Amino acid sequence: MIVQDTTTLQSTDATMSGMPADSVGLVTPQKAHFDTPLPLACGRTLPSYDLVYETYGELNDDRSNAVLICHALSGHHHAAGYHHKDDRKPGWWDAHIGPGKSIDTNRFFVVSLNNLGGCHGSTGPCSIDPETGREWGPDFPMMTVTDWVHSQAKLADLLGIERFAAVVGGSLGGMQVMQWSLAYPERIANAVVIAATPKLSAQNIAFNEVARQAIRSDPEFHGGRYHEHGALPRRGLKLARMVGHITYLSEDAMGYKFGRDLREDNFHFGYDVEFQVESYLRYQGDTFSTSFDANTYLLMTKVLDYFDPAAVHGGDLATALEPACCPFLVISFSSDWRFPPSRSEELVDALMQAGKSVSYARIESPHGHDAFLLPEPRYQAVFSAFMERVARDLCLEASH
Amino acid sequence: MIVQDTTTLQSTDATMSGMPADSVGLVTPQKAHFDTPLPLACGRTLPSYDLVYETYGELNDDRSNAVLICHALSGHHHAAGYHHKDDRKPGWWDAHIGPGKSIDTNRFFVVSLNNLGGCHGSTGPCSIDPETGREWGPDFPMMTVTDWVHSQAKLADLLGIERFAAVVGGSLGGMQVMQWSLAYPERIANAVVIAATPKLSAQNIAFNEVARQAIRSDPEFHGGRYHEHGALPRRGLKLARMVGHITYLSEDAMGYKFGRDLREDNFHFGYDVEFQVESYLRYQGDTFSTSFDANTYLLMTKVLDYFDPAAVHGGDLATALEPACCPFLVISFSSDWRFPPSRSEELVDALMQAGKSVSYARIESPHGHDAFLLPEPRYQAVFSAFMERVARDLCLEASH
Repeated sequence: MIVQDTTTLQSTDATMSGMPADSVGLVTPQKAHFDTPLPLACGRTLPSYDLVYETYGELNDDRSNAVLICHALSGHHHAAGYHHKDDRKPGWWDAHIGPGKSIDTNRFFVVSLNNLGGCHGSTGPCSIDPETGREWGPDFPMMTVTDWVHSQAKLADLLGIERFAAVVGGSLGGMQVMQWSLAYPERIANAVVIAATPKLSAQNIAFNEVARQAIRSDPEFHGGRYHEHGALPRRGLKLARMVGHITYLSEDAMGYKFGRDLREDNFHFGYDVEFQVESYLRYQGDTFSTSFDANTYLLMTKVLDYFDPAAVHGGDLATALEPACCPFLVISFSSDWRFPPSRSEELVDALMQAGKSVSYARIESPHGHDAFLLPEPRYQAVFSAFMERVARDLCLEASH
Repeated sequence: MIVQDTTTLQSTDATMSGMPADSVGLVTPQKAHFDTPLPLACGRTLPSYDLVYETYGELNDDRSNAVLICHALSGHHHAAGYHHKDDRKPGWWDAHIGPGKSIDTNRFFVVSLNNLGGCHGSTGPCSIDPETGREWGPDFPMMTVTDWVHSQAKLADLLGIERFAAVVGGSLGGMQVMQWSLAYPERIANAVVIAATPKLSAQNIAFNEVARQAIRSDPEFHGGRYHEHGALPRRGLKLARMVGHITYLSEDAMGYKFGRDLREDNFHFGYDVEFQVESYLRYQGDTFSTSFDANTYLLMTKVLDYFDPAAVHGGDLATALEPACCPFLVISFSSDWRFPPSRSEELVDALMQAGKSVSYARIESPHGHDAFLLPEPRYQAVFSAFMERVARDLCLEASH
């Protein structure tokens, strides 16, 4: 049984509330509850679950204009617009979702959810296990990209979306897009895979493992039962995030941003902050450590590690991609060293080998992996042109 | 006043003890004590200190054949040969020091020391502060490459070495070589700078900062007074080393070595080791965390961060290098992403701009930063040829 929450307030007109004219405006998250158990790749079953999501734009009469946004490691459902008129920052992908933007909400109905295992309202380690009445914590079942895609399909069912005009995501989000094209080829009309990889490298796994060890070795972790101990593994989460940030920025971007600049004029020959980059990392780590759940972070890193659709085909990615039948847009960024262009090109090559339709753009950018979140003229041009073609093929009219 | 320790046993003939014929054989560390206070860059003064060192080969009559080895972040004085006949592993640079090797102990008298602040016998945070009778711990003065070079010059004085035939080092060791050429241009006949950089990048500093935060936020760190608390910040040191190891290996080397190989046949969907690379990192981290001192590790990372001889010349490296008057050999490795070839080339370009003699080799290697420790035919050929020329210029004869 599927029950939809009653909070269904949609986005308001942005200009009326003093927000940028190309914003989707004020948005309110919604919550969908699912009572049908979800079997998982790990062999366990999630008995019931909630998914928190936002929507931007309007679903058209034949329900053909829906675009699904899949989020990355520390992402969530709030991809565009503002929750309160006093919010200083919009959603995490506001640069690309809105009226007239790459994902044009005058044409498309955008669905953006928080994935299972998340810590922003969807069922995850901070939720109550209905069978025990206790917080799931470390006993929350391990997730995979495949599980997420199945849960997203249930959300699509709820919203009456038979087939997405496009499924779109960057980084870990791009992995979900790949999996959509394999698990539900008839339900995805177009795939946009940005700054992703068909599988993590040993080095990617190594960085994830450092993050996990940092969290799990924090004495405040308490085997994942930190809430029950009135504790939080802040130190571990901070370290995990600091390591993460180094991999999100390119070496050059860090150089441009901070160089070897000192925070004060001289060395003080001690362990307080001396260089600007130290200050930046500590701040990023501190902020994250009080706003993100440690069990969720652990789980998200494992979801990344596990993704490897070619594995069951002896490593042959082209064979793995055979079920896919939609056109792909693949985008990479020149200075991304987390998932460099070569990793996107593995996907492009395999798609071509499998005889699929694929457009590929390698965008020059100094911003490293983070570039997928930012506006960049050529990135926007390529992305917009593809989505324009998606709209044209579906004969979608602008709704304003 | 300089007092030399009485332990002066030199290397024995390797072949007599069943060790490889090209080994320097059994070696015994020696300790030199210095009573003359050493003024430091941080403004403090080290009242007295010990330096532990080893020597390989024989000093010739005119004392012209000495080669100084400078060690890297976690290095020490034991660069070649064996301490016990049952040792499974020789010194850390045994691939390059020995009879017939790049640094040929039949020609050269090799001096290898543990730097001040180290944890292998030279005065450092684990030593007793003579003024308080208490372990120095976190109160040990901050070191710089400049301080190290001055202390090394004192050791040279003690050994009666007026001028080194060559000063040689990789990574942080290479920075000491650069500093030797600037601080004591008349005392260094040749400089060999391997896998180094004239200054850290923001990303390099960022990785060091993660390591420092890992150690300093470990509850067992106790503000650096862990020994007095009967504790060791093992968790923090382990994390620091894990991060370090990722930067020492190239992405490709990690890929060749581990790929996405599982330790067991299947995923177990939990946080125990699943991938080989996780097992490797945990093992490396665990081993290091019980064998290296945390205060020393912190100090070594700061020494790296501070090094920047061009800073006092407004960032003009060529001007900074003007005092140098010896020929340089600079070597970099193609897959080193900690100090990539481009960083060595900054040094090469500046040396050329300053009108110095410099030979440069960029060695193809899949081994990342670690390549400087390993044998590699072209690396050995270039290194040997340079040292052969050093010997020829000094009219050194082989001593065997």
